[in-house]
Amino acid sequence: MVHEKRIEKLAALLRKKGLNAIFAGPSTDLEYLADLKLFDDERVKGLLISSEGRIFALTPMLYGEEMRKALGDRAIYKIWADHEGFKTAFVEGAAEIGVNGGRIAINDGVRAVDLIEMEDALRAEYVNGAAALSPLRRVKDETELEYMRRASSIADAVMEDVSKFIRAGRSERDVQEFLVKAFAERGGEGLSFSPIVAGGPNGSMPHYHGNDRILQDGDFVVADIGCKYKGYCSDMTRTFCIGEPSDEMARVYGIVLEAQKAGEAAVRRGSTGQDVDRAARKIIADAGCGEYFLNRLGHGVGIAIHEEPYIIEGNDTPLEPGNVFSVEPGIYIPGKFGVRVENLVTVKADGSAEALNKFTRELITISLR
Amino acid sequence: MVHEKRIEKLAALLRKKGLNAIFAGPSTDLEYLADLKLFDDERVKGLLISSEGRIFALTPMLYGEEMRKALGDRAIYKIWADHEGFKTAFVEGAAEIGVNGGRIAINDGVRAVDLIEMEDALRAEYVNGAAALSPLRRVKDETELEYMRRASSIADAVMEDVSKFIRAGRSERDVQEFLVKAFAERGGEGLSFSPIVAGGPNGSMPHYHGNDRILQDGDFVVADIGCKYKGYCSDMTRTFCIGEPSDEMARVYGIVLEAQKAGEAAVRRGSTGQDVDRAARKIIADAGCGEYFLNRLGHGVGIAIHEEPYIIEGNDTPLEPGNVFSVEPGIYIPGKFGVRVENLVTVKADGSAEALNKFTRELITISLR
Repeated sequence: MVHEKRIEKLAALLRKKGLNAIFAGPSTDLEYLADLKLFDDERVKGLLISSEGRIFALTPMLYGEEMRKALGDRAIYKIWADHEGFKTAFVEGAAEIGVNGGRIAINDGVRAVDLIEMEDALRAEYVNGAAALSPLRRVKDETELEYMRRASSIADAVMEDVSKFIRAGRSERDVQEFLVKAFAERGGEGLSFSPIVAGGPNGSMPHYHGNDRILQDGDFVVADIGCKYKGYCSDMTRTFCIGEPSDEMARVYGIVLEAQKAGEAAVRRGSTGQDVDRAARKIIADAGCGEYFLNRLGHGVGIAIHEEPYIIEGNDTPLEPGNVFSVEPGIYIPGKFGVRVENLVTVKADGSAEALNKFTRELITISLR
Repeated sequence: MVHEKRIEKLAALLRKKGLNAIFAGPSTDLEYLADLKLFDDERVKGLLISSEGRIFALTPMLYGEEMRKALGDRAIYKIWADHEGFKTAFVEGAAEIGVNGGRIAINDGVRAVDLIEMEDALRAEYVNGAAALSPLRRVKDETELEYMRRASSIADAVMEDVSKFIRAGRSERDVQEFLVKAFAERGGEGLSFSPIVAGGPNGSMPHYHGNDRILQDGDFVVADIGCKYKGYCSDMTRTFCIGEPSDEMARVYGIVLEAQKAGEAAVRRGSTGQDVDRAARKIIADAGCGEYFLNRLGHGVGIAIHEEPYIIEGNDTPLEPGNVFSVEPGIYIPGKFGVRVENLVTVKADGSAEALNKFTRELITISLR
């Protein structure tokens, strides 16, 4: 179903920015605008939305029925068969809604190789529209916030479940599989990302991809997890210790925890992403660990797992009520271990901060059995 | 680990095509060239490979350790922090391997919005390199074929398992969850795609996305499934009937099955993707159902689930030994049902065809209990 108010606001934004249209490929933008989820294969598809709010659905034949079910009479369609390619349909459909060139924004669901073909088919100035919908999406309304609170409370419950499952002798893969099942049982509607479970030295890679390690006595285990609820994401991280931490591990955990709390404490209406990043980063730098904090402090979350506002040096846009973002400092020591503690936080109507995650941030040590 | 022979062949191809370099973002190309799997977030990353075979790894700080582990001293690195953005690192790294402009191919792992920023940072002619690696990848060697046979035999076993699980009263979601577990138990190393389970009228959408339907007496159930083994994909489809099919259903199933067999029978060294597509399409057209066959007959499969060779009208490249692709005709009747039957097929060294899937293609009816 097309969300008319969102299309209206988007069209107004396009006009304000001097854009003739935006082309949005498969992405959370299409979910946001029209509840449209498309299988992400190499067939070029998406919606071209004009600054007048007209919609053209570029439709591979394979997806005709799904497109029509989602958009009904609200869009015009140009359907192309596999052997024809998309270019003619793209040009004809664009013309039909009055887009014959000018400035066209491209969202982040479009592949570069397809943009190259589009440029060849329809002469226009194509501009980066990754952030075009951000002004709409980064402020969540009460309904969206309720979905996000629910997604986060499911993640809290699953984190507690997994704290009782992790033990020496289990593999990272065992823990991942447990997490997938636990989310399903707790009411998660799919995952927001494949859970990261990184034990021992694997923890120093913030987005560690493997899962072969057998967890052992003395491991820190980083668990970064999240699910969806009504399309909205949760995202939280805790770091557990199997057995007792060494003095160094305990010290590092303490620094990260203090930084996470300092970050949350800096969240309020009117402070900026940069302010919040600096508040946490200072704790880690002052403790002499600055070189091991590899990333921005946080990212916005919503339908997408990474969206605005980014909590990062250089972002001086004031935070507003309805923003939701992660606060996730970490210390990553190659060859040794990593520690990350992450909550989602929102700015409330009264301007103060609310952590969506309630599960303890204190270090949980897992006894050896 | 960098596969030097593959890099060498790629560099030779670049020189032959007058390209100075190729930039490959997170994609199966990076797995093929360097066993490099990267988390697919918005941080721009990948390898720029020059026509001399030099490699520059564009590396967000977050991924430094993983990049170095995979590439060692074989690449030069430019590491960028979140708040810096990637542009300066991109330009400097490119210059360091001798790429200062000219013609640069872009693979299918790059986002259009990032290409727009690259164009802004480094003036060059950026060309569509989605198919740049196809000449190497579309002919599988004996090791790759063994992996693909294994992946397909796991899929065969899982298809037999699920044929005993499907019944009226179970939901599409139940069947999907069963499939995920069955693949893990049968030795699949991850899925090649999220399994499609489409009952009754949902079957008319070839890439149906939902899973809410409760299966019922008289449903056709399309199950399109696949797993990975050593990084290589399987992909197969069967359509089951719950209870006895109507005359129309039985007739349509028979047409699709005949078309699938005709497609496979047309596979041999020297015939083309177009020949094979036409052989199957003719059966369906002659039966009066042409308008309900919505897609190309098939696609190549390997590390990627869709790659060359495409089995499609207009593809007149002769098939070669080592090609592996799907043969998957279907008839999709909106509001009623869909039928698809799909095997993976390879051309053997002697020029004849071999189906990688052995599970029966005859209609299985599921008795009502």
